[in-house]
Amino acid sequence: MFAFRRAVYVIARRSYATSPLASKFKINGDRLWNDIHETAKWSAPSPGGVTRLCADENDKMVRDWFREQVIALGADYKVNATGTQIALFDGDDNSIPPIAMGSHLDTVATGGKFDGPLGVIGALEVLRSMKEQSIKTRAPLVLINWTNEEGARFFPLLGSSCVYAGQSTVEAAHASISTDNSSLTMGGELAKIGYVGDGPNYFDEFPISGHFEIHVEQHTDLEKAGKPVGWVEGWQGMTWYNVVFHGDDGHANTKPMWGRRDTLAASAELITVLEKLAYEMNGYTTTTGIHSHPFGSCNIQSKTKVIFCLMHKEAEGLEGMGKAIENRIASIAGQRGLEFELERDIHLPPGDFWSEAIACVRDACGDKGIASRTGTGHDSTMTTTKVPTAMVFVRAKDGISHSPKEWSDKEDCAEGALVLGKAVLNFDELLKQKAAGLHV
Amino acid sequence: MFAFRRAVYVIARRSYATSPLASKFKINGDRLWNDIHETAKWSAPSPGGVTRLCADENDKMVRDWFREQVIALGADYKVNATGTQIALFDGDDNSIPPIAMGSHLDTVATGGKFDGPLGVIGALEVLRSMKEQSIKTRAPLVLINWTNEEGARFFPLLGSSCVYAGQSTVEAAHASISTDNSSLTMGGELAKIGYVGDGPNYFDEFPISGHFEIHVEQHTDLEKAGKPVGWVEGWQGMTWYNVVFHGDDGHANTKPMWGRRDTLAASAELITVLEKLAYEMNGYTTTTGIHSHPFGSCNIQSKTKVIFCLMHKEAEGLEGMGKAIENRIASIAGQRGLEFELERDIHLPPGDFWSEAIACVRDACGDKGIASRTGTGHDSTMTTTKVPTAMVFVRAKDGISHSPKEWSDKEDCAEGALVLGKAVLNFDELLKQKAAGLHV
Repeated sequence: MFAFRRAVYVIARRSYATSPLASKFKINGDRLWNDIHETAKWSAPSPGGVTRLCADENDKMVRDWFREQVIALGADYKVNATGTQIALFDGDDNSIPPIAMGSHLDTVATGGKFDGPLGVIGALEVLRSMKEQSIKTRAPLVLINWTNEEGARFFPLLGSSCVYAGQSTVEAAHASISTDNSSLTMGGELAKIGYVGDGPNYFDEFPISGHFEIHVEQHTDLEKAGKPVGWVEGWQGMTWYNVVFHGDDGHANTKPMWGRRDTLAASAELITVLEKLAYEMNGYTTTTGIHSHPFGSCNIQSKTKVIFCLMHKEAEGLEGMGKAIENRIASIAGQRGLEFELERDIHLPPGDFWSEAIACVRDACGDKGIASRTGTGHDSTMTTTKVPTAMVFVRAKDGISHSPKEWSDKEDCAEGALVLGKAVLNFDELLKQKAAGLHV
Repeated sequence: MFAFRRAVYVIARRSYATSPLASKFKINGDRLWNDIHETAKWSAPSPGGVTRLCADENDKMVRDWFREQVIALGADYKVNATGTQIALFDGDDNSIPPIAMGSHLDTVATGGKFDGPLGVIGALEVLRSMKEQSIKTRAPLVLINWTNEEGARFFPLLGSSCVYAGQSTVEAAHASISTDNSSLTMGGELAKIGYVGDGPNYFDEFPISGHFEIHVEQHTDLEKAGKPVGWVEGWQGMTWYNVVFHGDDGHANTKPMWGRRDTLAASAELITVLEKLAYEMNGYTTTTGIHSHPFGSCNIQSKTKVIFCLMHKEAEGLEGMGKAIENRIASIAGQRGLEFELERDIHLPPGDFWSEAIACVRDACGDKGIASRTGTGHDSTMTTTKVPTAMVFVRAKDGISHSPKEWSDKEDCAEGALVLGKAVLNFDELLKQKAAGLHV
């Protein structure tokens, strides 16, 4: 178990700046749109959507494409040990840590075209447009394609950004286990596609000044407000658990009901309790996986693993849900005579992004955006433990995500990329003003 | 779906006979015991028990051993298309269809040393002892190692005996799908280990006169009565279903609880209902498998398959349980907005073995046995649709089966083999008397 801790920071006063370059900045919405759809071809069969799991053959192909694009733009390109692709671009003063834009090109199984790719390709579009418009920032810029954000193939998620933030290690990330219960690991599979590099892994090796990320909203606040974009002020809390129940083998037909130690029946009880818990405590709960053994048509199930997550907007609510379900797991096991192992794999309390970074995005949104919050974790929820971080939300149809039905309109994607570019220019201006002593 | 039908037969009066050879017949309990434990080495790692799944490398090794043993005894040896090993031994009159003894050398995962192997090795011991004691029956004898009785690796179970009984076909058995959700089939895997042969597959090609099988009881009636053996009068009814729920993909963290179409939550509700149904209707129910998709730590589960079986001693009870659960599945799906596909894969109503075959076993048991019934299906529940069939039960410690804890004492196994041999001799005598017009 590792817990994501929030770095302690103090902001003396509300600092923000508007870059004079931001008002003139443009991006090419057609190019962005075409690249989102063109790169979606690197996918396992997934009608209408994308299934590009971390370190699979399609992930290799989209990574190779990314490398070509950033090298063509003149990047100093590196891959680190967890496969993260880092494309560094000169600023006027390369002694300043770069301002990062990043997200992920991996997707979940039966995912959409936007969750992840929009953040990377949108940032690429910003860099292309800056080059075309001869806009050079004072600080260097860096574009990062973070590895295994989704945790879809290898658990835990935020697989590389959590290492960067010092919440995990390269060794632990390499050992991340396959969610299909096979013996594959993330390190082994990254090596197979040639994406274990010698680039920097930790913040201390490669500090950045800030981190900005475009993402589809995955909720309906923007849609209801009729706004294409939003500035993301923070995230709801979330916790991932896994529990393994251990019971007894037995014959499915002949063993009387009394005296059974059936782990699948126990797991089903847990899953129904989890669903009720969301309603009882005004949070969300999802059971995301189950693995039950032994296989066969005539066995009582003697070992079952259940993976689930709890979500709540309030820290106390999240903590309360965790305590409630831990108690229920113990009582389900107790009443059924089972042993169990319970682990809290990830714990991310609710929190806020940095107000100075949020201000840069808010200013870039103007009247096209509203304030919003995210319901889930992102690479930005890792970088924010180290440096000013904020996110740009793009309106998503019906709030659907992690589904082939995920959709954002071309114009909204373009607006998101424009806001990202302006926010980065604003943040560069802020750093400049701070260096000149204009902000604390 | 295929339903196992009971053949219609009429017995004009209760026919039985006691063979004069039976009282002198002996078996070698040490040799039987040693072979049970020696052959248990052909197993995947399975401390204390046996995991020898149909057509795996261990199944190949125990099959090769079986072939050597029966050829050394002088058998006319054949393998049929579904991998069943058939060892034919001459009688005094080879124009009579042979009397069969059979069971299975495959086991479930994390199974025991007795369920299956005792039936085959016990019958082998009968043949060895008959040869040593120069006992020759009038009818030929045949020893059969039936393929995939357990259905542990490939579904459905009774994989070869159901073909023999005309309830399925070689093609359907070859197409039996892997229970681990891989694309492997029984036909493909049998071919890999070299066990697709040209021997007879169907009753009509290779009729037998009767079928006798030793099996561990898998219940506690013999133990409670203090008896080492039992004659099996019939079986409880059982039905296997599989249901696949189809819902929607969605984000595990951000999607509100309302409007979800979560197939794993629906499946959990079904499994808890199934458990209650057993108590409500005085039957047994077991959920034997679950497969849920997509894999990953951040997805609402959009497709879940649940495999379960219902058991009841009464035909009406079994039918009632089936109707009840079919209704509940429809209402669970309806209230959650899910689509579903429900199949009843196997339906075996409760029934009785043939009284003339039971009488041969009962007479062989003498005062060492009691009447019993089995809670599950066996290869004998297939042959009984065609010819007089009965089973010999051997006392099992605590009734535990499909578990490494499965245990029967050496003396009880020996008693079981002795009863099998005597029962076959009695049946041979019965056939002789019938041929002489002494029975209808």
